[in-house]
Amino acid sequence: MDNTVSPMPLPEMAPMAEFDKTPPTPPEEEPPPGDLPPPPNVTPGSAEKGQKHRNYDDENSWACGNWFEFLLVVALAIILLVGALVLVLFWVLYYRQGFAWTENPTLEFNLHPVLMIAGFITFSGFSMLLYRIGRCCRRIYVKLFHTIFHALAVPCVVVGFIAVLDSHNLANPPIRNFYSLHSWMGFVTMGLFALQFVVGFFSFLILLCCENATAGFRASLVPIHATFGILTFMLAVATCLTGLTEKAFLTPGLFYSFMTEEAIIINALAMTLVASAIVMAYALLREGFRYSGHILVSVQSEM
Amino acid sequence: MDNTVSPMPLPEMAPMAEFDKTPPTPPEEEPPPGDLPPPPNVTPGSAEKGQKHRNYDDENSWACGNWFEFLLVVALAIILLVGALVLVLFWVLYYRQGFAWTENPTLEFNLHPVLMIAGFITFSGFSMLLYRIGRCCRRIYVKLFHTIFHALAVPCVVVGFIAVLDSHNLANPPIRNFYSLHSWMGFVTMGLFALQFVVGFFSFLILLCCENATAGFRASLVPIHATFGILTFMLAVATCLTGLTEKAFLTPGLFYSFMTEEAIIINALAMTLVASAIVMAYALLREGFRYSGHILVSVQSEM
Repeated sequence: MDNTVSPMPLPEMAPMAEFDKTPPTPPEEEPPPGDLPPPPNVTPGSAEKGQKHRNYDDENSWACGNWFEFLLVVALAIILLVGALVLVLFWVLYYRQGFAWTENPTLEFNLHPVLMIAGFITFSGFSMLLYRIGRCCRRIYVKLFHTIFHALAVPCVVVGFIAVLDSHNLANPPIRNFYSLHSWMGFVTMGLFALQFVVGFFSFLILLCCENATAGFRASLVPIHATFGILTFMLAVATCLTGLTEKAFLTPGLFYSFMTEEAIIINALAMTLVASAIVMAYALLREGFRYSGHILVSVQSEM
Repeated sequence: MDNTVSPMPLPEMAPMAEFDKTPPTPPEEEPPPGDLPPPPNVTPGSAEKGQKHRNYDDENSWACGNWFEFLLVVALAIILLVGALVLVLFWVLYYRQGFAWTENPTLEFNLHPVLMIAGFITFSGFSMLLYRIGRCCRRIYVKLFHTIFHALAVPCVVVGFIAVLDSHNLANPPIRNFYSLHSWMGFVTMGLFALQFVVGFFSFLILLCCENATAGFRASLVPIHATFGILTFMLAVATCLTGLTEKAFLTPGLFYSFMTEEAIIINALAMTLVASAIVMAYALLREGFRYSGHILVSVQSEM
């Protein structure tokens, strides 16, 4: 793998066509290996032997021990992402009289939390998690499903945004727009999301049309795209939390400070979002959970 | 470095005493290198040669290009961390009549945002940033200053917590405690902070007393400590944002929806916190900004 992760492949490497079939995304998530030559008192031969030995140990220990941790974290992440959507649906349907469109601005507002959590948390979160779930799959399929789930998030976000604008403008008297921290943060989050979507779509799918020429560029973009993706998710969670705080304090009849049933549901929803941020960060940043070893397998299968 | 980053050093390696002087913290932030042997069509000799060549290239390119990006990001992070503290101080002193202790619960509350931002954002953030600023320093000094800055955060957090409890309990009529999302999130953040502090203190400083025996354990703990550290920072930022939202909506005479001067200052403070989360995430997660190459230098100097 040392020689496949570089955007500047060595001339002796496997042909680029192979490199392209399993695009350079995953290995580039790991830093360039071996910044330094081996210590002076280690002969190259012995170092290499020790290295190989350790690698096999690592592989075995992953198969035995870390799989349990991996499955636990991924399962927990999925439960939390779906759980947040279920909780917000329950809250809106059971305590806030469900949905409507422009004929009832108060009920139209209810679309906003549900669609924003569906788009920014459940779909986007699951889409990012695919890069961990799909450890054993062909990378191009993971990419496609990553794009599809993010594409599903787009209409949710757009309709959720229209719903809150409508519910403000059609209210009697109209409610002012874009003054609260929640709205400012929402703007930043939507902007980052749109930027990530456009950059990701063009760089990792469209540019595949000239695979060889763009491999280096695409590979160098991966860590930036991944970092900003996680960041957008965290910002989305933070924006949800400010929105829920706003709603909890502003809703008449909620009696937030008396910890009514509805207040506890809102706080539980918020803590689910916090937990999902924690578990997602762990799942996505944990070095050991990253994609590994796929390129060697595909090289071997075609040699 | 391939041979120095492992928690299980090879028998041929430089003596452990050297390893201990530059403790195993930094290299372990990078994943174990080389999960796979080189591709079958690359001979070990040529791969190694290419590897070395690429390493020197990397070093040079860092010296030329990435230093500017690194300095820019670190400077921006420091400006934002200090800027948040300056803004919250300005807000409290100029718009909220400054500080008091138990004789005036309303003014005692003002200690809460200032001390929490000082502790959780400015001191903790700078403390984490030290691992990027101190790229060229002896690791043990960076560790010590990391501990000192986190230790400075502890009294801030404790007094900030007492201030908000007092301001609720001594108010007339008393304000209820621990119902809001902000308070729940504050609990989680403080708990994670305390856990990280205790685990970090014992694992990375106290366990140094038997360095050799604990090297593997300490090294394996580093990525977990780093991930949860970044997470605690993000949670702290999210908690601040819910707190500011609460304050903005609940403060009489603030006229939040009319975007008064004070409302804009609060939103600007919040957006500074969001920006600091973004820049800190970038500075801490960017692979290229991580500690590199220190062990070789110290091995060479003593050989």
